[in-house]
Amino acid sequence: MENNKIIGILGGGQLGRMLIQQGINYGIITYVLDKDPNASCSTICNKFILGDLLDFETVYQFGKMVDKLTIEIEHVNVDALLKLKSEGLTIIPDPDAIKIIQDKGLQKLFYKANNIPTADFILLNNKSEIKKHEHFLPAFQKMRRFGYDGKGVTRINNLENLTNAFDCESYLEKAFDFEKEISVIVVADGKGKLSCYDPVELVFDPKYNLVDYLISPANIKPSVENEAKMVALKVVEKLNSAGIFAVELFLGKNDEIIVNETAPRAHNSGHQTIEGNYSSQFDQQIRLLLDLPLGSVHAHSSSLMLNLIGAPKYNGIAIYEGLAEILKMEGVFIHLYGKMETRPGRKMGHITLIGDNIESMIEQSRKIKKIINIKA
Amino acid sequence: MENNKIIGILGGGQLGRMLIQQGINYGIITYVLDKDPNASCSTICNKFILGDLLDFETVYQFGKMVDKLTIEIEHVNVDALLKLKSEGLTIIPDPDAIKIIQDKGLQKLFYKANNIPTADFILLNNKSEIKKHEHFLPAFQKMRRFGYDGKGVTRINNLENLTNAFDCESYLEKAFDFEKEISVIVVADGKGKLSCYDPVELVFDPKYNLVDYLISPANIKPSVENEAKMVALKVVEKLNSAGIFAVELFLGKNDEIIVNETAPRAHNSGHQTIEGNYSSQFDQQIRLLLDLPLGSVHAHSSSLMLNLIGAPKYNGIAIYEGLAEILKMEGVFIHLYGKMETRPGRKMGHITLIGDNIESMIEQSRKIKKIINIKA
Repeated sequence: MENNKIIGILGGGQLGRMLIQQGINYGIITYVLDKDPNASCSTICNKFILGDLLDFETVYQFGKMVDKLTIEIEHVNVDALLKLKSEGLTIIPDPDAIKIIQDKGLQKLFYKANNIPTADFILLNNKSEIKKHEHFLPAFQKMRRFGYDGKGVTRINNLENLTNAFDCESYLEKAFDFEKEISVIVVADGKGKLSCYDPVELVFDPKYNLVDYLISPANIKPSVENEAKMVALKVVEKLNSAGIFAVELFLGKNDEIIVNETAPRAHNSGHQTIEGNYSSQFDQQIRLLLDLPLGSVHAHSSSLMLNLIGAPKYNGIAIYEGLAEILKMEGVFIHLYGKMETRPGRKMGHITLIGDNIESMIEQSRKIKKIINIKA
Repeated sequence: MENNKIIGILGGGQLGRMLIQQGINYGIITYVLDKDPNASCSTICNKFILGDLLDFETVYQFGKMVDKLTIEIEHVNVDALLKLKSEGLTIIPDPDAIKIIQDKGLQKLFYKANNIPTADFILLNNKSEIKKHEHFLPAFQKMRRFGYDGKGVTRINNLENLTNAFDCESYLEKAFDFEKEISVIVVADGKGKLSCYDPVELVFDPKYNLVDYLISPANIKPSVENEAKMVALKVVEKLNSAGIFAVELFLGKNDEIIVNETAPRAHNSGHQTIEGNYSSQFDQQIRLLLDLPLGSVHAHSSSLMLNLIGAPKYNGIAIYEGLAEILKMEGVFIHLYGKMETRPGRKMGHITLIGDNIESMIEQSRKIKKIINIKA
């Protein structure tokens, strides 16, 4: 291996930031493209380029500057990536996989075509088409593009209540009465080798619809764990691309597993791999980019990951209250994302706990949540 | 805590690099001063300033640009630091502690004045003074300043053999017939709180006189471990300064512990704390700089750290042979220092192994040494 390969990253958020941080171990050089001059990565990458990830020319020219290209967000101009790929650039994940995933309608069709279990759905071109499908309600309406962290999702109970419905390309999805949400991070080298971390269990904050905390490993039966891994590996096998993928799953009341959605990149539900596993999701991504072997997904400790989100009502330069107090606790690791400004519900960082006893970690995370406050 | 404090680092080598990498978790901004434009930190800090660490004006002006100041090498202009301190800048470690340590003669006098066990010594102004001390030979002659990694040390057996002797301020030190070399990393908050990691055991490469590998914890009796910690804590207590200190110790044939030397900074013998301990030496340094509580020194795994040094006869742009093969092994973590050029014996990176069984890690490190080769 040679030093100083230029890795281009589309997107400058916290996922890119943690990728760059891990990349320091491998002596890589990083270029980042993002439209926000204060993006998380802007202060730590080697070259920061201001530009629109959805603009063909911007993405294409960025690709011409780097040795390898990757993403930390899927909302990017795929046509530019396809042209760069045809010209020989290594892009991880494959542009065709991004294309399927960035349009949740295509993603649902992909699951169906590959016999991957997922909730029933009906594609819609606009709001008024909902009226033709009264029999399908109650259901969730989801925007096909640009949704994230629960945005772009609304619940439609009946036809009387269409004020909140989205008037764009979307789909109706049968509400699935799940017991748990779990996630499996899959790593694929694009040459037929796939590997996955143990499933983690996500507990959501009902107020912001963001992951509140997650535990690794998930508290599920061995048979369910096995089924979750099989389904996640099948999704990635069928996507036929190198990369890191987060397959989000619902576990039903009768132990059935269905796919909610897949991200073609490192994911919030894999942050605990930094401290809990031999090779983190970011380490794996660097290895793929440098053509090095996949790392071990083995967890050396159990872990809990807690998102640090901006407190309600505060907007402006972030101040982290209570940090000193929680940093007195053993086995607490902090990751701040270097975002200048806080907003209510904004992901500002995360905390990982490692240890042997998940119950006591959950207890500790409750204490931590009471102590830490991100204000302005 | 507020984001975006500017931390100034004197020195741009690998210790600064790992400090910056850890600092990403805390959202700090880093400025680095070094005279080598290709220094390890140059590609990853926020601002890199080219300049001589020993020049008063350069160091003083650099200090005026930052919110807090620290070092990753002790060979810096202390007068500038004293002036900056008098003007209110927080400097970790304290300039007075650096002053004692950067002159190994003063360091020896400091040990003697504080009844800290160390090998007998005689200060010398020049080479010819050695002749007055024939009775003291055989002994090591050590330069008082600018020695590192075994450089600035020579063995004087008798007066017939003074060709290799240094003609500068130096001292003769009685050769001590030690059983083992051990090191203790101490953390001090400067307000009376001190804490230390478990002693590690250093095994040297006889060819380059560099640490070949170290194991954590050291294979020593509990009574010796306790004594080593007590001596190390006493050294740092008497230095009366906040900071990270590496106290290098010799363990004699009769279990006696004496101090070899102390570094007022993160140290090669603490690299394994990144993967093996709850809070690494670099994490502690960041915490001190941000006025956060000391982290836990507890080791969650045993570990072995192996330096990666440039192969004999190769000078030029570094190529890392065998990296892919060793990255297939579980529990292997790589840290490359981003140095463009390799030279025989140059520290180019390190590898940490973590696990439960030190014997099998030593075995594995032997395999790794045969596989990896840093050429040009």
